Amino acid sequence: MQPLRFVVLLGSLRKASFNATLARSLPSLAPEGVSIELLGSVGDIPHYDADVQAEGFPESVVKMGKAIKQADAVIIVTPEYNYSVPGVLKNALDWISRLPDTPFAGKPVAIQTGSPGLIGGARAQYHLRQILVFFDALVLNKPEVMVGQIPSKVDQEKDEISDAATRDFVANQLVALSKMAALHKA
Amino acid sequence: MQPLRFVVLLGSLRKASFNATLARSLPSLAPEGVSIELLGSVGDIPHYDADVQAEGFPESVVKMGKAIKQADAVIIVTPEYNYSVPGVLKNALDWISRLPDTPFAGKPVAIQTGSPGLIGGARAQYHLRQILVFFDALVLNKPEVMVGQIPSKVDQEKDEISDAATRDFVANQLVALSKMAALHKA
Amino acid sequence: MQPLRFVVLLGSLRKASFNATLARSLPSLAPEGVSIELLGSVGDIPHYDADVQAEGFPESVVKMGKAIKQADAVIIVTPEYNYSVPGVLKNALDWISRLPDTPFAGKPVAIQTGSPGLIGGARAQYHLRQILVFFDALVLNKPEVMVGQIPSKVDQEKDEISDAATRDFVANQLVALSKMAALHKA
Amino acid sequence: MQPLRFVVLLGSLRKASFNATLARSLPSLAPEGVSIELLGSVGDIPHYDADVQAEGFPESVVKMGKAIKQADAVIIVTPEYNYSVPGVLKNALDWISRLPDTPFAGKPVAIQTGSPGLIGGARAQYHLRQILVFFDALVLNKPEVMVGQIPSKVDQEKDEISDAATRDFVANQLVALSKMAALHKA
Repeated sequence: MQPLRFVVLLGSLRKASFNATLARSLPSLAPEGVSIELLGSVGDIPHYDADVQAEGFPESVVKMGKAIKQADAVIIVTPEYNYSVPGVLKNALDWISRLPDTPFAGKPVAIQTGSPGLIGGARAQYHLRQILVFFDALVLNKPEVMVGQIPSKVDQEKDEISDAATRDFVANQLVALSKMAALHKA
Repeated sequence: MQPLRFVVLLGSLRKASFNATLARSLPSLAPEGVSIELLGSVGDIPHYDADVQAEGFPESVVKMGKAIKQADAVIIVTPEYNYSVPGVLKNALDWISRLPDTPFAGKPVAIQTGSPGLIGGARAQYHLRQILVFFDALVLNKPEVMVGQIPSKVDQEKDEISDAATRDFVANQLVALSKMAALHKA
Repeated sequence: MQPLRFVVLLGSLRKASFNATLARSLPSLAPEGVSIELLGSVGDIPHYDADVQAEGFPESVVKMGKAIKQADAVIIVTPEYNYSVPGVLKNALDWISRLPDTPFAGKPVAIQTGSPGLIGGARAQYHLRQILVFFDALVLNKPEVMVGQIPSKVDQEKDEISDAATRDFVANQLVALSKMAALHKA
Repeated sequence: MQPLRFVVLLGSLRKASFNATLARSLPSLAPEGVSIELLGSVGDIPHYDADVQAEGFPESVVKMGKAIKQADAVIIVTPEYNYSVPGVLKNALDWISRLPDTPFAGKPVAIQTGSPGLIGGARAQYHLRQILVFFDALVLNKPEVMVGQIPSKVDQEKDEISDAATRDFVANQLVALSKMAALHKA
């Protein structure tokens, strides 16, 4: 199999974010031949405003769009805010959707959400899936990674997922995404 | 009936936004005894970040929260971006949801969306409704205001809704919201 | 407070359904002054077909509609099937929606879902909420009753909820629904 | 390209259903090398009941499942009932989801909805998409076929789509589905 490059889009800005730890754990869980890199912060992207767009896309948006376009797959890792996608993440997507080369079109995407409660961010996932229909992204169905009670499953000092079952589950999703990416790269 | 005060939360930053015109048309369509005022711009609210929150809520958020808390109802007027709620609007809601006095709890809310296509923003409305369950807001069911082909229904020079049927429909929603607000104010 | 009458609409046909046990537990958890009765089975309602409707509504539909119309509130108790509302439950709602007296309009409604997994039927709840917007029903926001790992929380021999926290939580929802029903009955 | 076989699952039972006409128009709009056949009626499938399932799957379910399993793609054509999927269609899906060979897994699927209003069934489509995540189906993103004002776009006497733009649009979706099916058959 030829090497694959995945990029990670993180939906939280908080420094001690559990989802950030989840995101940074991914490279070490990648299957052989797959490299995984984090994209820049969605916090660097200004509020979407069509008047600003008319003067030119911000550099942070152009850079993120290019990195997505060149990747073989995207992993979106995000908390759920108020039963939906965080505004800061949606704002980044709102910008990216206007880029003329539509970086998400035909792109394999996996979603991972973590939350302190039992539901693990499920509500945000289906909103994100509806959004990604518009982007014409190819969103992986299974396994769905919804990490409930996430504070007990990551070790923030070691900056990695500490719960073995969660590690396996996340690793399995990366394998499934690799197969999807390989099919669509071919 | 005692006088009622509604506030309008606008989801677009674009100066020539059709939804902004819709929002600014509302005061002139209000039933007798109802005053309607626009809230500050969601563009003035920084990206939600729990680390920033830990240092204190931004003044723009505190002010918006107070205005919502004191109002008898809220009207959310917004475009649909990418089959969902604009990131900038969701970001404002993400901040407001953390305010200790939960300004939306028990508050009557009406939703209005406008879009250039035929669907009129329906997809954004149901995402917003799911979000507002978390807020414990009381969202008006009917009439649902989804203004399709909005460029042909507003007059941006006069800054008002020009289409008579749309004016009536929007005015009917304001009457329904007034009844709801009066019931819950009593 | 004047007495209130609630009815329960159950979304499962299976005899040993955990959700059926949940539904049958409700009368014993009702606040003082509130009586709770189960509606007839959705299994007695034929497949919705506009051609059948043209010949007259089935007796089972008329009866269920009348009972809902006369009740002060409705509690929908249902499993989640395939990330949504069971077809048999939706089919009953499809019939009821055509009744000329719109029994759900303005009616307080609470939703309870139970599932073997951790998520407790959340996905079905938001689909049901969207459906009930069309019905113009007044759906209680909080507390949301999503009973995860339901097999460990009900005692099917005693036909009641055995888990104390779940009993309390469900009872709290009935209190919240009573307040809502009292407000709208007044 | 090797020949492809698509099957159509229809969500309405009404004889003079506009969506039925849409479904029956599909064979004549198929790209070269693609044959399209209607599946049996969802009206022949009994209410889902796990107790009935325990005694064996109904013949109608087994037959429908086998036809889906053998097809290269499925087209779901359905009206929207009450802002969601018709109960009769969901009921058929509830049965099919229990079949041991999971006929929808990895199967390309396209969705078409028609409605008398302007929105064209959009609300049903996203509910169906969420359901199909559970099925691990591969749902085509674009073009989305939502036929608004359907009574003016089909000719029920000729039993075909009369509106030229709608014919083209539907035909384009069949081409897109063919490409997807060919990729996954290979």
